[in-house]
Amino acid sequence: MQRDAEATRARILRAATDEFAGNGLAGARVDRIAAAASANKQLIYAYFGSKEGLFDAVMAEAVAGLLGDVPFDAADLPHYAVALHDYGLGHPELVRLARWHSLQRPGVLATLPEAVAATEAKLKALADLQALGVVDDSLPARHLLEQVLALVHSGNDGVFAEFTGAGDAAQLQARRAALHRSVARLVEPRASGSPEAV
Amino acid sequence: MQRDAEATRARILRAATDEFAGNGLAGARVDRIAAAASANKQLIYAYFGSKEGLFDAVMAEAVAGLLGDVPFDAADLPHYAVALHDYGLGHPELVRLARWHSLQRPGVLATLPEAVAATEAKLKALADLQALGVVDDSLPARHLLEQVLALVHSGNDGVFAEFTGAGDAAQLQARRAALHRSVARLVEPRASGSPEAV
Repeated sequence: MQRDAEATRARILRAATDEFAGNGLAGARVDRIAAAASANKQLIYAYFGSKEGLFDAVMAEAVAGLLGDVPFDAADLPHYAVALHDYGLGHPELVRLARWHSLQRPGVLATLPEAVAATEAKLKALADLQALGVVDDSLPARHLLEQVLALVHSGNDGVFAEFTGAGDAAQLQARRAALHRSVARLVEPRASGSPEAV
Repeated sequence: MQRDAEATRARILRAATDEFAGNGLAGARVDRIAAAASANKQLIYAYFGSKEGLFDAVMAEAVAGLLGDVPFDAADLPHYAVALHDYGLGHPELVRLARWHSLQRPGVLATLPEAVAATEAKLKALADLQALGVVDDSLPARHLLEQVLALVHSGNDGVFAEFTGAGDAAQLQARRAALHRSVARLVEPRASGSPEAV
């Protein structure tokens, strides 16, 4: 019975991921999720409380999956950035999901305990390497992490990405190299006394 | 009569900007836009064809406003980036609008003639300065522009911005300095023969 319940919950989350990624919160239909998951609509409400609760659970699941599949590596941020970029390319539905979620459930992501704990751990690791001089320390770890993550998403989901075109396969490889190059520039320590254009 | 028509069109676009920024395409109501603009609903359809057409017109207007208010400066990209960042902070409704539009009208922005022409002009200016050695030429102008724009939006609307917190006034000033510093790092030419971590 316990195993059945877990399997049902997993099917609901998978179906809900597709539904929310495609239509967002307002456009999503719990009826369609129930049908796709071969689950009872009442059961969905029993498990998740509301359509909003289900959306948040889907987002939490997506974050957990991302954190598990792409371990943070403060000592090699260019490599981490490329890995995260490739994960986004391989999971376009999660990128859409995250964008809908930030628009339609603003502030909620920052309250998910898993997300908060993961971010704090990243910032701690980054600050430690800054103190050791391995990562440039002219920016607070928080801003550096923000900027690295922004570069990761510059190619596939930035607000202005459409301006500059999605790109073909050759452009994709060039974009990965560009990402590696630019993250390296952001994090490389400068010799003390060398000019910093702030 | 001509002047009246222009004033009415402007009122409709203002009301529609608020409505679409708040609710996106699916959630927006043309009735509410008509009421807020003191305009006839039939007139809105006559001017813009459909709710989608109105949404696209609002986006085109927002792009035109942005391009007029924040002139591109290929020779001082750190300064341009900070100006663009501040524009986004001063117009949060336009940031939301752009995010809804990219989710709900994917690909349409790239077909707006004004946006295409503006991007081509930026890329041309950037490539010219790369050829002169003023801007680093280890990346195609397109990727460099993408990355600069991504950094601009890292603080206020990135997918992962919520992870790292919105920040208070002191953080805002630090973020502007961080943006200036990092864009400078991305675009500064390296002496030939110096190592580039690509």
